[in-house]
Amino acid sequence: MYKSGRHFLQIPGPSNVPDRVLRAMDFPTMDHRGPDFADIGKKALEGMKSIFKTEQDVVIFPSSGTGAWEAALVNTLSAGDRVLMYETGHFATLWQALAKRLGLQPEFIPSDWRSGADPEKIEAYLRADKNHEIKAVCVVHNETSTGSVTQVKEVRDAIDSAGHPALLMVDSISGLASIDFQFDAWGVDVAVSGSQKGLMLPPGLSFNAISAKARAASAKATLPKSYWAWDEMKGPNEKGYFPYTPATNLLYGLNVAIDMLHEEGLDAVFARHARHGEATRQAVRTWGLDILCSDPRHYSNVLTTVVMPTGSSADAFRKTTLDNFDMSLGSGLSKVSDRVFRIGHLGHFNDLMLMATLSGVEMGLKLASVPHNRGGAQAAMDYLTNSERPTEAIAAAQ
Amino acid sequence: MYKSGRHFLQIPGPSNVPDRVLRAMDFPTMDHRGPDFADIGKKALEGMKSIFKTEQDVVIFPSSGTGAWEAALVNTLSAGDRVLMYETGHFATLWQALAKRLGLQPEFIPSDWRSGADPEKIEAYLRADKNHEIKAVCVVHNETSTGSVTQVKEVRDAIDSAGHPALLMVDSISGLASIDFQFDAWGVDVAVSGSQKGLMLPPGLSFNAISAKARAASAKATLPKSYWAWDEMKGPNEKGYFPYTPATNLLYGLNVAIDMLHEEGLDAVFARHARHGEATRQAVRTWGLDILCSDPRHYSNVLTTVVMPTGSSADAFRKTTLDNFDMSLGSGLSKVSDRVFRIGHLGHFNDLMLMATLSGVEMGLKLASVPHNRGGAQAAMDYLTNSERPTEAIAAAQ
Amino acid sequence: MYKSGRHFLQIPGPSNVPDRVLRAMDFPTMDHRGPDFADIGKKALEGMKSIFKTEQDVVIFPSSGTGAWEAALVNTLSAGDRVLMYETGHFATLWQALAKRLGLQPEFIPSDWRSGADPEKIEAYLRADKNHEIKAVCVVHNETSTGSVTQVKEVRDAIDSAGHPALLMVDSISGLASIDFQFDAWGVDVAVSGSQKGLMLPPGLSFNAISAKARAASAKATLPKSYWAWDEMKGPNEKGYFPYTPATNLLYGLNVAIDMLHEEGLDAVFARHARHGEATRQAVRTWGLDILCSDPRHYSNVLTTVVMPTGSSADAFRKTTLDNFDMSLGSGLSKVSDRVFRIGHLGHFNDLMLMATLSGVEMGLKLASVPHNRGGAQAAMDYLTNSERPTEAIAAAQ
Amino acid sequence: MYKSGRHFLQIPGPSNVPDRVLRAMDFPTMDHRGPDFADIGKKALEGMKSIFKTEQDVVIFPSSGTGAWEAALVNTLSAGDRVLMYETGHFATLWQALAKRLGLQPEFIPSDWRSGADPEKIEAYLRADKNHEIKAVCVVHNETSTGSVTQVKEVRDAIDSAGHPALLMVDSISGLASIDFQFDAWGVDVAVSGSQKGLMLPPGLSFNAISAKARAASAKATLPKSYWAWDEMKGPNEKGYFPYTPATNLLYGLNVAIDMLHEEGLDAVFARHARHGEATRQAVRTWGLDILCSDPRHYSNVLTTVVMPTGSSADAFRKTTLDNFDMSLGSGLSKVSDRVFRIGHLGHFNDLMLMATLSGVEMGLKLASVPHNRGGAQAAMDYLTNSERPTEAIAAAQ
Repeated sequence: MYKSGRHFLQIPGPSNVPDRVLRAMDFPTMDHRGPDFADIGKKALEGMKSIFKTEQDVVIFPSSGTGAWEAALVNTLSAGDRVLMYETGHFATLWQALAKRLGLQPEFIPSDWRSGADPEKIEAYLRADKNHEIKAVCVVHNETSTGSVTQVKEVRDAIDSAGHPALLMVDSISGLASIDFQFDAWGVDVAVSGSQKGLMLPPGLSFNAISAKARAASAKATLPKSYWAWDEMKGPNEKGYFPYTPATNLLYGLNVAIDMLHEEGLDAVFARHARHGEATRQAVRTWGLDILCSDPRHYSNVLTTVVMPTGSSADAFRKTTLDNFDMSLGSGLSKVSDRVFRIGHLGHFNDLMLMATLSGVEMGLKLASVPHNRGGAQAAMDYLTNSERPTEAIAAAQ
Repeated sequence: MYKSGRHFLQIPGPSNVPDRVLRAMDFPTMDHRGPDFADIGKKALEGMKSIFKTEQDVVIFPSSGTGAWEAALVNTLSAGDRVLMYETGHFATLWQALAKRLGLQPEFIPSDWRSGADPEKIEAYLRADKNHEIKAVCVVHNETSTGSVTQVKEVRDAIDSAGHPALLMVDSISGLASIDFQFDAWGVDVAVSGSQKGLMLPPGLSFNAISAKARAASAKATLPKSYWAWDEMKGPNEKGYFPYTPATNLLYGLNVAIDMLHEEGLDAVFARHARHGEATRQAVRTWGLDILCSDPRHYSNVLTTVVMPTGSSADAFRKTTLDNFDMSLGSGLSKVSDRVFRIGHLGHFNDLMLMATLSGVEMGLKLASVPHNRGGAQAAMDYLTNSERPTEAIAAAQ
Repeated sequence: MYKSGRHFLQIPGPSNVPDRVLRAMDFPTMDHRGPDFADIGKKALEGMKSIFKTEQDVVIFPSSGTGAWEAALVNTLSAGDRVLMYETGHFATLWQALAKRLGLQPEFIPSDWRSGADPEKIEAYLRADKNHEIKAVCVVHNETSTGSVTQVKEVRDAIDSAGHPALLMVDSISGLASIDFQFDAWGVDVAVSGSQKGLMLPPGLSFNAISAKARAASAKATLPKSYWAWDEMKGPNEKGYFPYTPATNLLYGLNVAIDMLHEEGLDAVFARHARHGEATRQAVRTWGLDILCSDPRHYSNVLTTVVMPTGSSADAFRKTTLDNFDMSLGSGLSKVSDRVFRIGHLGHFNDLMLMATLSGVEMGLKLASVPHNRGGAQAAMDYLTNSERPTEAIAAAQ
Repeated sequence: MYKSGRHFLQIPGPSNVPDRVLRAMDFPTMDHRGPDFADIGKKALEGMKSIFKTEQDVVIFPSSGTGAWEAALVNTLSAGDRVLMYETGHFATLWQALAKRLGLQPEFIPSDWRSGADPEKIEAYLRADKNHEIKAVCVVHNETSTGSVTQVKEVRDAIDSAGHPALLMVDSISGLASIDFQFDAWGVDVAVSGSQKGLMLPPGLSFNAISAKARAASAKATLPKSYWAWDEMKGPNEKGYFPYTPATNLLYGLNVAIDMLHEEGLDAVFARHARHGEATRQAVRTWGLDILCSDPRHYSNVLTTVVMPTGSSADAFRKTTLDNFDMSLGSGLSKVSDRVFRIGHLGHFNDLMLMATLSGVEMGLKLASVPHNRGGAQAAMDYLTNSERPTEAIAAAQ
């Protein structure tokens, strides 16, 4: 059926791609081995370091984020290695399954999907590993299936407190460039990210940031690898090139997206996401619905996962919203299928796009006959006009 | 200052241009005299007939709508001719000034800018013109400066009742393709329109629809003309060409826009605008503000003009909204400068874009300290969910 | 029928539009009365002054070049005014016909279409006009129908030698930004141009440059005008705005095109066109065909018009070339219809695009069985490699 | 330095991307799990089957072609497996190195890089493998580093004659959609391809076609894999979805590219490439230079690799051509570095683009003082006008 006006893509990624990025990607493909390409390659690699907040290495893969998960593991580990993972939600579970397929031995700290990883449990687990057989601790920074954030610095501290040498690997696919991430300052060893969330690009690029310690580990790791091999990247990357054909047009877009993030300022970007996260939570509370994340310290400013009242189908509600208001919302995945829906408020976004989104949710709740209180959108407006205004927040951040 | 997310262009034109139209315009310019161009030219000319609802002639100018105003007059009239015009607002006043500059004698029925033209006054005026010296009656279908609609069919009936031979000329620059317009059925002689409103294009194309009677009048009209001359269009147009270089890339976009209007269905397009017009008025009433148009029969579904409370500056409010929420609203023009603002809800638009718009207005009213009641956006949501849903309206319209 | 690869648009305008310009036009339309628009308007108006090489006024119309012809006349002249025009070709003839339609009295110095205007004839004509009844001398700088250039400075000198006060009006629609044009230094009073030639844009914008003398004349001119009226432009233009809705998206493109011209450097642009003009003429001579322009001092570097051997149809040849090689060539117009074809080598162009073009002509001549000698493309290559290389020419020009 | 006009990207891939494909990729990213996406996914998967000429399975990876090499191996083989590979050039060598990195035992039939694989050598090798320890025969269909084609059907016949059960894996990264490839009819077991060659897309997508026999082998293969795992694709693919986020915007472009290939007709596409390959070879011979491929039965119609005369540097020549004529040519890789250059004549291409290319090569040879005979471009023109014209070829192909 014909839909007038713009679609609202309010899943927690892919996020809305800015016109500047789309237009940049619309230029003719160039010779990726020619002299003009080197500037593009260097800018992308250096730019991504500034986003990861690292002075160590970053590599870029032509792949979706799943590829960078695999790259993190195959470059640093060997068959049968034990790795400690944490069940923060669906994506943590998928990463764990991937580790298993690759022949690793993931050990999975269970959780109820309602918070980020608990550093105390990690510390306890590591302390019990007297022989230091666990080679890596893998956590998801922003769990896209639940809207809970793991405090990465606390995990680092837990590992250190336990005096354990495991590598710290962090999936920040949906966190990077929306909420703060400090690769160097937090002591992360391998970070994993993707293009289609806070980086405001279409899917098709993924990233690893790599610490010196991870680099050293990669020299001894024996899992077979070639496409994902970090070692082959290093030489060409130093000159701005890649060992195989890169996704040229996505790189055009990446360089514009990095420019845009720095034009706004990363702190302003994070303040904007925080503002929209809180406005959304105020709306959800007003509707009388539960936020899946039960620990306010772990609330995600990237997305909000809303629990449906008993007896209401999240998928029926999402269909109502899509059919009537041309807005895509995120579904509940695996364990919480049909029981929750997810509101993405990340990336290229602003107050009125948020109000459109929350209005669409409120109207959808009504049309789908989901029990709720009116006034959630109104509460968000109240918050947006009572809290520091974006102009002030950005000025303050500068 | 950096603005994240999409700009909301909620002036009453130019309206938001769909991506399909922008991408179509982004193709290489072609030879406007080559064989492949003929199909494009024919499709544009035939397509515009379907939008004007006419089987008579349509011409397309590379110009803004002002050019088509001039074309309507110079093709049909001679120096010193008397024309009856009606002061529905700023644009009617501009058209009248243009007529005066061209050496015509416009006679202007005054009005308070709060309604469309009154057919009874027109009829009375024409009855008084016993010698039929008035050559044309010119009215504005949708007055973009006020948000009032003139009932064109009633004007036609008034002219007929008066037994007067004057041509009926109608400016439907901002009405066409948003609210119903029936060139043939309503007995219009010359219609004027432009690309940047309901047609969802950037500005740069304008249109005349021409009745047989107007065509006959043009044979005797002596105002000098060349660029606007209808007679030079006819031959080339029949083969899909133009007498001088057309705005090729805008024509690419026009053909896509015409396709989109027919894919949605003109009746569905009008129903959508009606729904959004009423939702907006409910919001305005809830805020306790006045709608400039005082006659509900003349409410425009294209835009709503809101009167500021005494003591509040409309321009200060608009600046607040632009600075804080990246939304452009229409200003008050001439007589109502700084006293009203205008909300455009036309063109490529949908429920959530409307809710973003109304939320932005409500938050702007608050930040600019304009006295108002909360709840306007909520009222619009109530209307949108209580009234027929778009899916049903469109189904019903088919 | 499906055509693989790029179309070659080698008519003498519209010329090939660069991707940077097309992509710039593909951004969302904005509020032409909002604060952000002022920068765009100012940049366009100031930028066009730099291209016309003037410190006097420039106006921009949303129209094709024909509109700027009309604007030049209606702003400066009154009904019945005598104007001296010169029959350099089809477009000079059309401008003269337009003057006649507007109620002026054009006097037309005849010519064989094989050269630019002869300044001596103009001088003689003006000397004979003892009473200075002739109000304007109108010449075409680069006659697009023939490929002959009028030496504008010589015309200025001729007017001055005759001691005649007539305004000098110059159509440089297809000359501007491809061959040198110096509005101020040459003493031009009104220049006319359009977007779709050397400016590398799609059609839809036209321009007047206006001397102080022309501005003074406009205060007394009585031809009716409104859309084209210069006086209404002045106030808004000073702040970067326009009196009616401008063709916003074309202005986006214009600003990028102006940037590109200055990045290359106007002198380098002219040197490039000169190089391609000469290479083309060498090819034509090798083929044993005649160049329509018979005076080497008047050769155009924008296009080359080639005379067909007796008995061969230019249109049949052009069709062969279009069908077999997907290249559009310019047709012979009116007097030289079917007897000549025109090769455009203007705008966004380079050596290899020229070689593609000349190869297409040579292969088309063969397939269409037009008597000719082989080797024209080879001669062009010899010239391109023997003459100063573009890199050197541009370096030399800096 | 500023470059006017279009760049000529005449490396053997990435090839020139059509505007239709770029514009399709420029649409907003959508929800890859929403109902509208299924049509896009199904069309891409079914469309690729039509290009591979298979009714068996095709999978699409968000990756460059190198990824699909890896996927072919890790899905079907186990650590230590012997595979027979054939040194047709640089890319065959890279694939072999990749196999080694993954823990396989590639055995490499050496060659002089001047022809495709010799089926007799393969047959002899396989006959010697009495115990059928060799699990796969891997050949490169169109060796992009040399311009030699392996006759895949002959390799299939060789395997069958030897009565050997090895899988036949074929890299047709640069062959597919430019020269004929028949997955089912030729009995291929795994095909590997990429988006940036005959498919006319930017890089970023890769493909495997998979026979039932390969599918069966994959059930037993034990190399670790997850991102590349075929088994996880099957379920989601059947409904038009993917197991992880696909490169949505590249898929938009892929569907348009598939449409374009079928609009032209695959046979017409192959005929066009054959015509351009032969025209290029005629030019090279006229220049008095050697074609690297020494066996006319193995000539590639995708690219032509030209051997430099002794004492001339291919890289210096390529730099001259890039600097002076803004054309990228392919470099000699590894063994033939600086000794050969490669002319790509593939993808979205036509006669005049070829003539531009060959003219650029000929002028570059002159400017770089490479010993050669004049007239190569002329010879190509003679061939193009003497051979069947494209219009006829395409008509004949229908």
